[in-house]
Amino acid sequence: MRTLQVDLGERSYPIYIGGGLLEKAGDFFEQHQQSTKSPVLIVTDDHVAPKYLPVVETSLQAKGYRTVSKVVKAGEKSKSLDVYEEVMTTAIEGGLDRRSAVVALGGGVVGDLAGFVAATYMRGVTFVQMPTTILAHDSSVGGKVAVNHRLAKNMIGAFHQPEMVLYDVDSLQSLPPRDVRAGLSEMIKHGLIWDAAFADWCREHTADLLALDPEALGYGLTQGCSIKSQVVSVDERENGLRAILNLGHTLGHAIEAIGGYGEFLHGEAISIGMAAAAKLAVNRGRDPQIYKQTVSILSGFGLPTAMPAHLNEQDVIGAMMHDKKFKEQTMVFILPLAIGRVEIVSDVTLDEVRQVIAELKEEGQHV
Amino acid sequence: MRTLQVDLGERSYPIYIGGGLLEKAGDFFEQHQQSTKSPVLIVTDDHVAPKYLPVVETSLQAKGYRTVSKVVKAGEKSKSLDVYEEVMTTAIEGGLDRRSAVVALGGGVVGDLAGFVAATYMRGVTFVQMPTTILAHDSSVGGKVAVNHRLAKNMIGAFHQPEMVLYDVDSLQSLPPRDVRAGLSEMIKHGLIWDAAFADWCREHTADLLALDPEALGYGLTQGCSIKSQVVSVDERENGLRAILNLGHTLGHAIEAIGGYGEFLHGEAISIGMAAAAKLAVNRGRDPQIYKQTVSILSGFGLPTAMPAHLNEQDVIGAMMHDKKFKEQTMVFILPLAIGRVEIVSDVTLDEVRQVIAELKEEGQHV
Repeated sequence: MRTLQVDLGERSYPIYIGGGLLEKAGDFFEQHQQSTKSPVLIVTDDHVAPKYLPVVETSLQAKGYRTVSKVVKAGEKSKSLDVYEEVMTTAIEGGLDRRSAVVALGGGVVGDLAGFVAATYMRGVTFVQMPTTILAHDSSVGGKVAVNHRLAKNMIGAFHQPEMVLYDVDSLQSLPPRDVRAGLSEMIKHGLIWDAAFADWCREHTADLLALDPEALGYGLTQGCSIKSQVVSVDERENGLRAILNLGHTLGHAIEAIGGYGEFLHGEAISIGMAAAAKLAVNRGRDPQIYKQTVSILSGFGLPTAMPAHLNEQDVIGAMMHDKKFKEQTMVFILPLAIGRVEIVSDVTLDEVRQVIAELKEEGQHV
Repeated sequence: MRTLQVDLGERSYPIYIGGGLLEKAGDFFEQHQQSTKSPVLIVTDDHVAPKYLPVVETSLQAKGYRTVSKVVKAGEKSKSLDVYEEVMTTAIEGGLDRRSAVVALGGGVVGDLAGFVAATYMRGVTFVQMPTTILAHDSSVGGKVAVNHRLAKNMIGAFHQPEMVLYDVDSLQSLPPRDVRAGLSEMIKHGLIWDAAFADWCREHTADLLALDPEALGYGLTQGCSIKSQVVSVDERENGLRAILNLGHTLGHAIEAIGGYGEFLHGEAISIGMAAAAKLAVNRGRDPQIYKQTVSILSGFGLPTAMPAHLNEQDVIGAMMHDKKFKEQTMVFILPLAIGRVEIVSDVTLDEVRQVIAELKEEGQHV
């Protein structure tokens, strides 16, 4: 087992990464001195529940914890205020009190949803993450939790750090290939923004990672979490540096939003977004190799890098306008300076965005 | 104008108390260096809007701020997730960004609702309180914001401190007498928990306060805010001392909940709750004078102190079970030790609560 400490002063917490951790959930709760007098709420989805919910329930109950569980439908649509209210109902009916913990057992959607419940139930209770996807290596670090508004993604949320993260890599073995690829998209992003050597390592271990080789996966997840936690430690509440984590997200969120949060997986949408950011940087005079290398790594993993022809340019722009990164009438983008280094620019014009969208549609037609 | 500084480290903020402040809202925004580039959202209700919304809009616009306004229905029912979502929609459609401010123009309901929007819109934006009720002198200090769940009050919320509070006492002159009385209930509470001399002062100035005498009101509000801010400064997130502010609230919230948040005003419900707490203390062996004095002050203001006969005991107990103060199978109450001093007890049994409910129903029949 690898242990990574996320350093946030009194809100610091450990990430445990290794095999067989879910069946030891009760031990970790005990070790973190969680009271057995207060019920624990486990939030999970209908894909994850049949496989791992009984394991976690049994482990917690064996240590004397009373558990209540809420199983939501798998998918981004569960990150809604309606489902959030349902989870709150379960929490209240289950008798959760201020010393209770809310567990997110699942991927990024469950983590964001359960995290926002933990942040706001009785004005905040203990939060424990048990990610079961690769993508969640990203969302489980940093304390950003949120649900979507029908007009824009992650619009309603909070900063709420977990008490601990239990990352059981065994739970990743049953992921469908599309989710594996999409999850690795955020891992690659961490290389692209911060660590050229890690980006290279990802490229060299493409096959191992796609095959879910335990050693490669363990290293890649630890490295990805570590980069993210370094950035977050410097800037917990996204006043500056933390924004670099949004590489590919300005456009990516818009693509997800107009697809109704169903057509594209998050990792696929930001893959297109990262290609777009690289193209935008090149259009502004950066080395054309940046774009070529970015596309080469991402497409090596089978991730999309062209803009789908059926997406309407005006819809994409419209969705971006509602995004949080549209500040004071100017558009903020994270643009690569080189592989492993990015800059935050806030003066991107609508024309530049339109041009990149057109160019990335072109790319799609050449494939 | 009186200025009271609430001392919370980097989250400290001033409360300005005086006449004519709403028409200077723009000046205060400028003084607090709020950017004019980001739209301001004003949340208010349909009782307050006709009187004061144009004043605030005009003042902000005169200083270059773009404003969007959301008028909700007056009353506790607007503290719902549905209305919260509507306000979020207005915020998104109005183009609010991370540097925007959300203004609560109104009483405690608007303050709690707008405050929870400010706490969670894009994971938190600037919050400004402009209370227009006496009750709001309580809710505008301390950063507790929340909406209700249909099963229990204030169950969904956050801690989010305002940037400033503009308390325009002119806006209190048009309050209906019932709201005046109910608002003074929290002011009296501050005397009962912390400051016997202030409780005495309230009793001696009953007529002045009910008549909204500006000098008495200015002093009483400043004193009430000051006591609350002293308590909150010691314990911002309610780990200990802050709980004393809940005197009368354990039972009070239950009374409000089963009345559907409409039958009793908050101040009326906690008045009954404070009488019940005093009775409970006496039943546990405290000086019977505590109960007599508590009832004497409250009833002097025309506030209810008996349990309404039509409230079903089992309903009241049931509603308390869902309350946040029901921790780990024991019931937490704030009980008076004397006028101006309270203790936090966590071992109150259901039988004790049943007995007090019965005794307070008896009292009602003697009136």
